[in-house]
Amino acid sequence: MQRTGNFLELSERIAEAVHSAIEGLVGTSDAGRVLYTGADGTPTKLIDDVSEKAIFDLLEKEGTSFRVISEEAGEKMIGTSPEHTMIIDPIDGTYNASQGIPFYGLSIAVTTKDLNDIRFGFVRNLATGDTFHAEAGKGSFFNGNRISISDNRDVSRFCVSIYGYRNNIENAAGLSGSVRRIRALGSVALELCYVAAGMIDAFADVRGTMRMTDIVAGKLIVEEAGGIITNGYGESLKLEDKVMGRDSVVASNGLAHERILKLSTGIVHEGQ
Amino acid sequence: MQRTGNFLELSERIAEAVHSAIEGLVGTSDAGRVLYTGADGTPTKLIDDVSEKAIFDLLEKEGTSFRVISEEAGEKMIGTSPEHTMIIDPIDGTYNASQGIPFYGLSIAVTTKDLNDIRFGFVRNLATGDTFHAEAGKGSFFNGNRISISDNRDVSRFCVSIYGYRNNIENAAGLSGSVRRIRALGSVALELCYVAAGMIDAFADVRGTMRMTDIVAGKLIVEEAGGIITNGYGESLKLEDKVMGRDSVVASNGLAHERILKLSTGIVHEGQ
Repeated sequence: MQRTGNFLELSERIAEAVHSAIEGLVGTSDAGRVLYTGADGTPTKLIDDVSEKAIFDLLEKEGTSFRVISEEAGEKMIGTSPEHTMIIDPIDGTYNASQGIPFYGLSIAVTTKDLNDIRFGFVRNLATGDTFHAEAGKGSFFNGNRISISDNRDVSRFCVSIYGYRNNIENAAGLSGSVRRIRALGSVALELCYVAAGMIDAFADVRGTMRMTDIVAGKLIVEEAGGIITNGYGESLKLEDKVMGRDSVVASNGLAHERILKLSTGIVHEGQ
Repeated sequence: MQRTGNFLELSERIAEAVHSAIEGLVGTSDAGRVLYTGADGTPTKLIDDVSEKAIFDLLEKEGTSFRVISEEAGEKMIGTSPEHTMIIDPIDGTYNASQGIPFYGLSIAVTTKDLNDIRFGFVRNLATGDTFHAEAGKGSFFNGNRISISDNRDVSRFCVSIYGYRNNIENAAGLSGSVRRIRALGSVALELCYVAAGMIDAFADVRGTMRMTDIVAGKLIVEEAGGIITNGYGESLKLEDKVMGRDSVVASNGLAHERILKLSTGIVHEGQ
């Protein structure tokens, strides 16, 4: 069994390789050029493709052994009889990256054969170098320092980040009117980490399409920091397929999760 | 008359002084501690105060001569018979800075005695070092490279940033439903610069309170990049007082300004 410390070192090397590979592309019109439709059914842009290729090159060159599930390429075996699965979003926040808005991340998670057994999560903001990681049972970290969720219980004082606003205007507007501050930063993986670090109190992805590659590293980072992440019904997320279903994802500090769920999904839960 | 090149060098030195002064505070609970009510009527937090003091110290030490209008301290004379007015927001995006979200800027503008005669504008993202500046009649720049607004005419494909969502849910929701992407980044000065650089297509501050210190540098940067900035009625902004009135501020690439105005303010303009 590989030690999780090795996963952190490997992720750092991957992040450096991706950073070098995309450096000249960030903020250029070329970055957003659509090359093909990726494995997840969404357009793969040049910057996604370049990032993903840099990752596969490094994994192969280092002689690692992983089953890899990636946003663009889909599933690929590297090495022989891999013990672990690596789930990658090479650029989370492609639009921001193509425009030069400094909020786009690389997301890497490592699981056993069971995708729900997440051992390690890593998210780096490639614009700032800020790095979040978590190891199962060992807590979550921001630039190497232990982090935990906010202690705010009062929803009217929450700062909440929303993704996919236009796909669900009514609920997003209801949520916006009930909290202190709204952010829409455009990178699911990073916004989940912000919940983990208590930088924001909650995050809701109301697009209605859950993408495993966006969420899996952030899920461990949120949970190891003491937070909660569920679907729109308040149920645990089941990591099975790249597109996990037509539902919302809601993460919070757990101190008012039901209320945030209700506001962001319109679904009334028991005991409300 | 001081040359505008001197204003750029001075602003760079100010930005470095502010960066050093706040470095240990960013992302700490201390940063957001309220010290007093600032000249603009809003709470002054420790990080705002530390930043502003660093600026005044530098301006005095260097023997400059300015009438200074600052968000927290209000108006102050430095030196004798100043020819120029310097308008400062020491930290635009205080909440982001106090939480460690990498979107907070220093905004500096220089005008003659007439505040509407903006000669120079400078905005630096203190988290990333990204710097925007403009000189009247000489264009706008991002990290030293000339910038211009986006060439997108189709509002349904716009990326629009919104500030003050919860103060005007109905219009903000209407705008959100009519464009491709919404951002809410939490720093007016930087979001104006993003319009100037074509990173986003438009920005609407729908709070209903226009603050001169937030807007003045960004206004020149937007205009010198070929964009338009108006109040909610489509009229030019008049820079007179720190709080410029209870109105919206809308900036765009100018290619669909009337439509963005209508969506973000609900005001129907002639010829619509």
